[in-house]
Amino acid sequence: MKIQLITIGNELLNGKVQDRNAYWLAGFCHEHHIDFTKNHIIPDEKEALFSSLNQAWNEADLVITSGGLGPTKDDLTKDMISEFFKRPIIECDKAMHCALENYKKSKREYDPRLEYSKVPEGFEPLLNRVGYAPGLFFRDNSKMIAALPGVPSEFKTMFTEEVLALAKNNIKETSTYRKHVIIKTWKAPESLIFNSIAPTLWDDLSELGEVSSLPNPMGVDIGVKIQADDLSQLSVKEQKVREYAQNSPLKENIWHIGKETIEQVIVQRAIEKNIRIGFAESCTGGLCASRITDVAGSSAVFMGSVVAYHNEVKENVLNVNKSTLEKYGAVSSETAWEMAQGARKALSADLVVTTTGVAGPGGGSKHKPVGTIGVGYSSERDCAGDLHHLPAKDREEMKLVFSQLALMKMLEQIELY
Amino acid sequence: MKIQLITIGNELLNGKVQDRNAYWLAGFCHEHHIDFTKNHIIPDEKEALFSSLNQAWNEADLVITSGGLGPTKDDLTKDMISEFFKRPIIECDKAMHCALENYKKSKREYDPRLEYSKVPEGFEPLLNRVGYAPGLFFRDNSKMIAALPGVPSEFKTMFTEEVLALAKNNIKETSTYRKHVIIKTWKAPESLIFNSIAPTLWDDLSELGEVSSLPNPMGVDIGVKIQADDLSQLSVKEQKVREYAQNSPLKENIWHIGKETIEQVIVQRAIEKNIRIGFAESCTGGLCASRITDVAGSSAVFMGSVVAYHNEVKENVLNVNKSTLEKYGAVSSETAWEMAQGARKALSADLVVTTTGVAGPGGGSKHKPVGTIGVGYSSERDCAGDLHHLPAKDREEMKLVFSQLALMKMLEQIELY
Repeated sequence: MKIQLITIGNELLNGKVQDRNAYWLAGFCHEHHIDFTKNHIIPDEKEALFSSLNQAWNEADLVITSGGLGPTKDDLTKDMISEFFKRPIIECDKAMHCALENYKKSKREYDPRLEYSKVPEGFEPLLNRVGYAPGLFFRDNSKMIAALPGVPSEFKTMFTEEVLALAKNNIKETSTYRKHVIIKTWKAPESLIFNSIAPTLWDDLSELGEVSSLPNPMGVDIGVKIQADDLSQLSVKEQKVREYAQNSPLKENIWHIGKETIEQVIVQRAIEKNIRIGFAESCTGGLCASRITDVAGSSAVFMGSVVAYHNEVKENVLNVNKSTLEKYGAVSSETAWEMAQGARKALSADLVVTTTGVAGPGGGSKHKPVGTIGVGYSSERDCAGDLHHLPAKDREEMKLVFSQLALMKMLEQIELY
Repeated sequence: MKIQLITIGNELLNGKVQDRNAYWLAGFCHEHHIDFTKNHIIPDEKEALFSSLNQAWNEADLVITSGGLGPTKDDLTKDMISEFFKRPIIECDKAMHCALENYKKSKREYDPRLEYSKVPEGFEPLLNRVGYAPGLFFRDNSKMIAALPGVPSEFKTMFTEEVLALAKNNIKETSTYRKHVIIKTWKAPESLIFNSIAPTLWDDLSELGEVSSLPNPMGVDIGVKIQADDLSQLSVKEQKVREYAQNSPLKENIWHIGKETIEQVIVQRAIEKNIRIGFAESCTGGLCASRITDVAGSSAVFMGSVVAYHNEVKENVLNVNKSTLEKYGAVSSETAWEMAQGARKALSADLVVTTTGVAGPGGGSKHKPVGTIGVGYSSERDCAGDLHHLPAKDREEMKLVFSQLALMKMLEQIELY
């Protein structure tokens, strides 16, 4: 089954909001072997929607729209869909029932001006268990369209609970099993990997499946799409990819094989090895901690983080010496490792990694420009700090790259346990 | 000038990466009065690119592609564009010069297998100052296309430095001035605002400009697009919007009029009032601190945050009583305000806000299900804690909503100073 998503909203095209539904749907479809073939992001305008609907209805089996079903006058999706499919909007008992139930449940009175009881003729209303506006569903032979609200929690719930059930018969049981095996590497750019370190890697892996390469701020993810007729053959193929990778000249650069993020791998390894981890963060401003706590179950090993943005906090909570700050500066390997020692004690952690750098746009100097970062760590056996000079980026990206460097340091240290 | 962006990459449609270029470009175009009319997100496939290129080349004045210019075999954009425009790929002295310069600068040797010196006939290479792969530019009468790398720092730099200069003549000097005035509200959903609190608001504001409404986890942003023939008329109109809003029945729900985020408003107001702020975070895991430190200049007032994920850290660093944790639990208003008192001292801050809640998916109980959060604050004059029950969402969204609640509490407290 091929899906196209049309994401509707002026706010998505003027930089006010970043859509998150497409990213979620992409991951969901990938897990469930559904082909997500295109995402159209368009304003609340008839011409734009009609142009995208024409294409999507022609190319996809299931078209999803997101957004524009709410109660305000700029929510035009229902009217536009009614016009596109030439089906007038009519009262619908089931839609009225959905709306009344939702309002009853939240002890508010339904206001008929909302028109949640109306749907285009021939469309089915979709229950919205976590919001108010119902969705819309329509089937024409093998083609389907579902209009869902843009609010992420409503979009997700209605897609998984309502749309999938209605589309079920169109999702063919496949006789091939597929998997995307991802070889995650660090410390070498794409051109170095494929031209120097492992020049035959791409072609060799291509014998096992379709190869792809995706650079990120700290390394390269190499994907191999494998498929087989049954699960045991699939598992044999996956094992071949793993063995090839682990015996290739690239092996020193591989930090994980699998789809997990670095924060997930850190939590998993720390749990396996029973290591209590923590951070002291200056330039990353809490981002390292936030990334680790995005992982469900992180509380088993994550003690916390001291976000020591101001030097007073470095001194008072982390016990960094005033003289170290004065002599070497807050952005220095010396401060980074004193922060690590102090944080390990304050957080009662086994392993702590620290960041202190210049995220910009201000605050840089000749010797410590934007992109300079001290990274420190402290464990039972060892304590050290490094100073790195990374290419300057804008502030948010800089924080992301800094946090990536700190998480890499943490994973390296965990692997040494 | 109308722009459409075609974002190319399998990784964007299987949930591995969330694109950020479209969001950035949308904001940039909005600031510069350029119409960003559609974003196509498609896989690295000829059929998909041709379908999007056909539409975009037909509807837009400037088509941008992002991604697929790198050195690996799944980078197909150059070949596909060459085929679409029926222009064979040829050697180009300028492209070779760009590539050699970039490699010389980074003290690496250029490998001719990269083919960075080749462009489709009639295309111009675009200098990539922050990466290696050059971009491509082509003009056909009033239509233009630019192919840029997907790496965000390269995309941004090349768009602003190279593409805009080449497209300059096509960006008409406008004789109308435009502005999007945003009325940011909280504590009431859309239907309540427009049906009960201020039923004439939409129509009244529509007399000043085009109105839009955008719900978010904690409130509603109401936008008014105003335009005028000169800047002083524009400013008069903006003033009218502001005065109308501030005198409307909605006034109690407005926390800001302007495009700034809540974290930007917090930093700005804290600087104006000279208040040193900080957090103690359990369930938000550093996200409050990370959001505040996304704001350039936050170091003027932001002391730091104690991410006290484990109860030992709540006791040892924040001085929360063991008996409080035992009697009321970590997720309680009592723990929240003890955390606030301890953190204000530890961080030498004037005002601290704290979070302790259940982000899920595990850890919920009958009385404290996922979505329960204790929020506390401590200032010179006052210290308190509340317990809230918010609708359960998935973990990352839950953290976002929790952090939003904490930032609202912080802004409320700053406004009371």
